[in-house]
Amino acid sequence: MLWDLARAEGPEAAARAALARIEAWADPALFIHRVPAEAVMAEARRLAGEGPMGRPLWGIPYVVKDNIDVAGMPTTAACPDYAFTPGEDAPCVARLRAAGAVLLGKVNLDQFATGLVGVRSPHGTPRNAVAPDCVPGGSSSGSASAVAAGIAGFSLGTDTAGSGRVPAGFQNIVGLKPSLGLVPTRGVVPACRSIDTVSVFAMTAAQAAEVLDAMAGADAADPYSRAAPASWRATGGAVPPALRVAVPEEAELLLDTPDDAALFRAALVRLEAMGATLERASIAPFLALARRLYDGAWVAERTAALRDMVENHADALHPTTRIILEGGLARRTVDAFDDFHAQAGARLLSRALFARFDLLAVPTAPGLPTLEAVAAEPIAVNSRNGTYTNFVNLLDLSAIAVPAGFRGDGRPAGITLVAPAFAEALLCAAGGALHHAAGLRLGASDETTPPPPPGAQPAAGEIALFCIGAHMAGLPLNGQVTSLGGRFLRRDRTRPEYRLHALGNRPGMVRAADGAAIEGEVWALPAAGIGPLLAQVPAPLGFGTVALESGPCLGFLAEASGVEGAPDITVHGGWRAWLAAQR
Amino acid sequence: MLWDLARAEGPEAAARAALARIEAWADPALFIHRVPAEAVMAEARRLAGEGPMGRPLWGIPYVVKDNIDVAGMPTTAACPDYAFTPGEDAPCVARLRAAGAVLLGKVNLDQFATGLVGVRSPHGTPRNAVAPDCVPGGSSSGSASAVAAGIAGFSLGTDTAGSGRVPAGFQNIVGLKPSLGLVPTRGVVPACRSIDTVSVFAMTAAQAAEVLDAMAGADAADPYSRAAPASWRATGGAVPPALRVAVPEEAELLLDTPDDAALFRAALVRLEAMGATLERASIAPFLALARRLYDGAWVAERTAALRDMVENHADALHPTTRIILEGGLARRTVDAFDDFHAQAGARLLSRALFARFDLLAVPTAPGLPTLEAVAAEPIAVNSRNGTYTNFVNLLDLSAIAVPAGFRGDGRPAGITLVAPAFAEALLCAAGGALHHAAGLRLGASDETTPPPPPGAQPAAGEIALFCIGAHMAGLPLNGQVTSLGGRFLRRDRTRPEYRLHALGNRPGMVRAADGAAIEGEVWALPAAGIGPLLAQVPAPLGFGTVALESGPCLGFLAEASGVEGAPDITVHGGWRAWLAAQR
Repeated sequence: MLWDLARAEGPEAAARAALARIEAWADPALFIHRVPAEAVMAEARRLAGEGPMGRPLWGIPYVVKDNIDVAGMPTTAACPDYAFTPGEDAPCVARLRAAGAVLLGKVNLDQFATGLVGVRSPHGTPRNAVAPDCVPGGSSSGSASAVAAGIAGFSLGTDTAGSGRVPAGFQNIVGLKPSLGLVPTRGVVPACRSIDTVSVFAMTAAQAAEVLDAMAGADAADPYSRAAPASWRATGGAVPPALRVAVPEEAELLLDTPDDAALFRAALVRLEAMGATLERASIAPFLALARRLYDGAWVAERTAALRDMVENHADALHPTTRIILEGGLARRTVDAFDDFHAQAGARLLSRALFARFDLLAVPTAPGLPTLEAVAAEPIAVNSRNGTYTNFVNLLDLSAIAVPAGFRGDGRPAGITLVAPAFAEALLCAAGGALHHAAGLRLGASDETTPPPPPGAQPAAGEIALFCIGAHMAGLPLNGQVTSLGGRFLRRDRTRPEYRLHALGNRPGMVRAADGAAIEGEVWALPAAGIGPLLAQVPAPLGFGTVALESGPCLGFLAEASGVEGAPDITVHGGWRAWLAAQR
Repeated sequence: MLWDLARAEGPEAAARAALARIEAWADPALFIHRVPAEAVMAEARRLAGEGPMGRPLWGIPYVVKDNIDVAGMPTTAACPDYAFTPGEDAPCVARLRAAGAVLLGKVNLDQFATGLVGVRSPHGTPRNAVAPDCVPGGSSSGSASAVAAGIAGFSLGTDTAGSGRVPAGFQNIVGLKPSLGLVPTRGVVPACRSIDTVSVFAMTAAQAAEVLDAMAGADAADPYSRAAPASWRATGGAVPPALRVAVPEEAELLLDTPDDAALFRAALVRLEAMGATLERASIAPFLALARRLYDGAWVAERTAALRDMVENHADALHPTTRIILEGGLARRTVDAFDDFHAQAGARLLSRALFARFDLLAVPTAPGLPTLEAVAAEPIAVNSRNGTYTNFVNLLDLSAIAVPAGFRGDGRPAGITLVAPAFAEALLCAAGGALHHAAGLRLGASDETTPPPPPGAQPAAGEIALFCIGAHMAGLPLNGQVTSLGGRFLRRDRTRPEYRLHALGNRPGMVRAADGAAIEGEVWALPAAGIGPLLAQVPAPLGFGTVALESGPCLGFLAEASGVEGAPDITVHGGWRAWLAAQR
């Protein structure tokens, strides 16, 4: 793979491999604008000379969807009459450049990112790298094809209605759709400006997370950009010991073939094998909201963004795109507020759902349509593709699409995990583990999913806290930790230097010469959450430095005077064991 | 005042006084629906019997604007043909009922809360309690008049464009407009649902804060309700020692008379005397956004909320209200998104402004128009009233309007402090101090502003930390505390139950049966700063609950095992005394 090549042999080797692959692949519909091979090699050489320090994506070749600005290259959005040449990179591209990634060019898309098929372009249809008789998926068609084909180590797409997930599902790769506002959308041709996102395609969730880390962050000039929580990072997440996953009611599961249904069920079984608890929950209100995306106010948001084209140059539009965009002209604002209030109502239900669950698991799409099927019914088949994706941005959620396997006819299927905003670390960790568990080849290659990287350290802006009692997972006070943004890191234990006492419903731990090793859990808390948590901890307990086997760590300690006379339960080795002994 | 009466003599005395005041005031345009006097007295008697425990507003008489549901009373929004009788209280009213407040009735308003004058009602115009030839202000006209006249201890209004602030400025009282979603708007007749708020009128900022505390909190059935930060409270705020206040550029200050300008300037001087640093900043983008509230998408939001009335019963509308609401029917969604994107852009600028400043100070209104002036130009004069209020909800800000004094012609003027969402504690503390400094009479009464409550306690969002060593003022590690936003609260000492040890350059304190009182300092830290501070504290020190003379407080403690063998310096009574003894 290109990542391994860049890291083992450097930028020039990776660039050479990517360029060779472009030639071998020979898809005339893939690129709209290529960086000349000499320029790619020159950039790789420059990076090789400067070295990898401070460049997390050093030498990794990538492509961007041609609705994202790259300085000096035309931005066309697959509409030649719309094209302009920006003077500066979109912030997302500038950040990738700074991170050392090497741009190969700009790739094809459904015109103006309006579509989920990949065939709505005057430049032709990029080839689906794993199922050539099927659509590549859209609107980020070229972005997905380039990664699946092994041409690019990763790619940028955009995702408003599902354009960053559907093509991933259709081509057996990973599609990470970040939270609204996490990656600036400045320098991106708007679809629905208020709910557009820049997304990442990669072979693995861990790679997608690395790209997102390099690209995320508020942009002072982008009104729809938002600051992430201080401790946010896409990499380094861990899968909680008892993941709670919602699955749509059986009646809400629309799947094209028995094989699609079987692949989704098999992915759910893999989630359970990872320790997750699955429970059915209705997503009917979300599906209802989703229908408003193309049949409500938001179609007029698309029209508003391209008003001059629609009103004065409609002939330059793809026929299907034109029908959609012209439909936005007649809508009335009094009706729009019905949509906005419905959105607010559905967000309320979504918050309630995600108070009960860590993730929602849905099929990435009902199935993978053939080129022929889409040609016959261009709008209906397209709409069906968005069944499980359209609602996600309207509800301010984040999502990752990962491969789920292949149907009997060889066509791929995907599963998508959905979470609240800024849960990308969890999504990438869980998505990566689920992908690995499936044991699939990557994209159109012969390689298989590597195990996800271990993720048991606190991220920047987090503080690790060793919990020994009721704050541990599943115990009564764990909610105090999770409500402050705490996430499980690992089980651990102290050096054999502590004694544990039972203070009613809590343990009190004190350092002592005649101590033993005490078991507990290390949780990562946002630094800002330590104070509010500590404010809920009564005397004689407090926080201090605990000597763990793995090193010193902030943790719960008791005042020695406060445990005098309390039962000494050190012999049990931990609170869970002591609780079990009480039953 | 009714608050003092309720607290000194109980609910019945306060209710009797309020009822007598209603009769003496004799304004036929004030109430739309009165609670019968016997029912008021019966409720007061019931509360008297149950006592004040757990009822923070025990026996305080109040009124609500007649666009807010009270079970069993008609909700009219000042449109008789619209009236319906709800079966249950709006959550805000239910919470006031639970807090022990006594409802006197429902008061007049600009029909459908559409207006800032108070004259747009078929029930007549409530009398301005301090300037009878002037409009009362709207749309919460009756709510302001009832408080200014001393009829109600407080009142509920609503505030979309300024209806909770303008009438306060026009009648020499306090108007507190909470953050969007802090008080549920369920059970309130919508104006612009997405930016409506329930507001509080009271004689003082401290009273308004108490009412807000009783009413705030997310409502699981209200899509526009939001959870406040965990530490949120309106009461108990402190004025920072170096408040940074933005003031509009001189050219952006539209004021009716030289007296209005002088009163605003005098209020700014009082802010400076409170230690604030004032700096000019342009609010031109906010004023531009404000114009879109009645000339953009949001007028259609009003229309959407009352669509059946507008489309089928327009004759039942006040003539001015009808013109406005019918104007919303023709607007197109493609234009609406221009407004929404402009709103997003202005929010970006607002975030930048409030990164530099704690507060923005503006006149509450350009001036107080006469009844005659409004009759002559019903829409233009109304619009002018909203100059400094219209942008606040569109930008997701909170605000408090406080009296600024009286013009030479006896008409009152107000100043409004604006802050980001959920800054009500700061607003009420700063607004209360500014109001007190003006030394004005309260409303139409002869009483003057009481001093604001003392602030040697941590404010909402802060945690008190008892420091005993190098973190105290002037000592080497104090910078760790102040750089995290810590502020000195007071000196204090422990109960005589601790022993102090010298651990090199730090003290270690341990609870002990043979202890003494140890001196230290209580510092207030933002809750978010506790974790980062603790991360810098090495073993054997940590944070736990320390028993102070003044009560329990988070503070520095040492592990008993860690002080073994260290010099016991308890006899010095504190670290400063021990340091002095070393010289």
